[in-house]
Amino acid sequence: MKIKDLRKVTNYKFLNMYELDYTDMKGNDKSWLFASRNLEPKCIRQTFSEADAVVIVPFHSKLNRLVVIEEFRVPLSGYQFGFPAGLVDQGESIAEAGRRELKEETGLDLTKVLKQSPPVYSTSGMTDESVCMLYVECEGLADNKHNESSEDIKTHFLSQKETKELLRDHSIKFDVKTWLVLSTFAQTGSL
Amino acid sequence: MKIKDLRKVTNYKFLNMYELDYTDMKGNDKSWLFASRNLEPKCIRQTFSEADAVVIVPFHSKLNRLVVIEEFRVPLSGYQFGFPAGLVDQGESIAEAGRRELKEETGLDLTKVLKQSPPVYSTSGMTDESVCMLYVECEGLADNKHNESSEDIKTHFLSQKETKELLRDHSIKFDVKTWLVLSTFAQTGSL
Repeated sequence: MKIKDLRKVTNYKFLNMYELDYTDMKGNDKSWLFASRNLEPKCIRQTFSEADAVVIVPFHSKLNRLVVIEEFRVPLSGYQFGFPAGLVDQGESIAEAGRRELKEETGLDLTKVLKQSPPVYSTSGMTDESVCMLYVECEGLADNKHNESSEDIKTHFLSQKETKELLRDHSIKFDVKTWLVLSTFAQTGSL
Repeated sequence: MKIKDLRKVTNYKFLNMYELDYTDMKGNDKSWLFASRNLEPKCIRQTFSEADAVVIVPFHSKLNRLVVIEEFRVPLSGYQFGFPAGLVDQGESIAEAGRRELKEETGLDLTKVLKQSPPVYSTSGMTDESVCMLYVECEGLADNKHNESSEDIKTHFLSQKETKELLRDHSIKFDVKTWLVLSTFAQTGSL
């Protein structure tokens, strides 16, 4: 593929739409629309080793429970079950961002990183957004005194049995990553 | 949350950016930007029971292999490992869309639906996009004569051992859903 032109077609601070003109493998001229949180999208800066965000899969060792949050999501005009997550700040490691977001969103303390994915892509037909999945152990009590005012979050602690029950409730909106991890946990009892 | 105003700030056919003004739970006036493939986003039409797209997790029973595709993704200006996927056409069931997309992208024939998720959300901070995960058995030989001209796809058949090796290669770009399913398959030998 050869990039011919990239136009930023909106002018917002945190999210923009881009139109990319390119020549495909067969020599055809084409264009593609996508959204990006980056002022220079990844296809231009080639910054594929940096993730935009961290998604934390927190296991509470003492309670022997998987932690998920129920959070208001504006584009869904309602609550979604998902994992704690957030954008990685400039200069912050994935583990540092995970520790900070877990505390802010749930009040829980990260005690051990179990596994970290490479940057993986949310939905690459629509956006260059990438996330690192960070599997951790955590401790402490849930509270939301660290929530930003825009956040409206309830923390849930799930056993394998409770996870099975939750997945059967089709009135719940799930984030896809969370649905996949919960499905594995429901089946196997592990992550 | 009370929706006050929704503005479509771009005017494209397949993907647009929207700016939503709303009053949050605490009575504060706020706005949120998001992308949507829908002419009327889900927060307006309240069509949460319909998925925009299907993502197929294909298991080739005779070969005893999980099927993934390596596909060129314009926003990543490179190849990504993912599952066959595509938008659900008007009036089409999820299983029908899955059968069609699997054939178009890999040449393989869907023989049995094993499991279907409810509509789950790709990355709900940025978009109202939802997908159904469709776990299927399939048969046949891979070919790409059904590919649309915009598609540039190679099909891979993975044993548990090959999946473990693939996940160790950090030069590969993975779709997050695919990375999660492959991680489970690498660990447990099942989906």
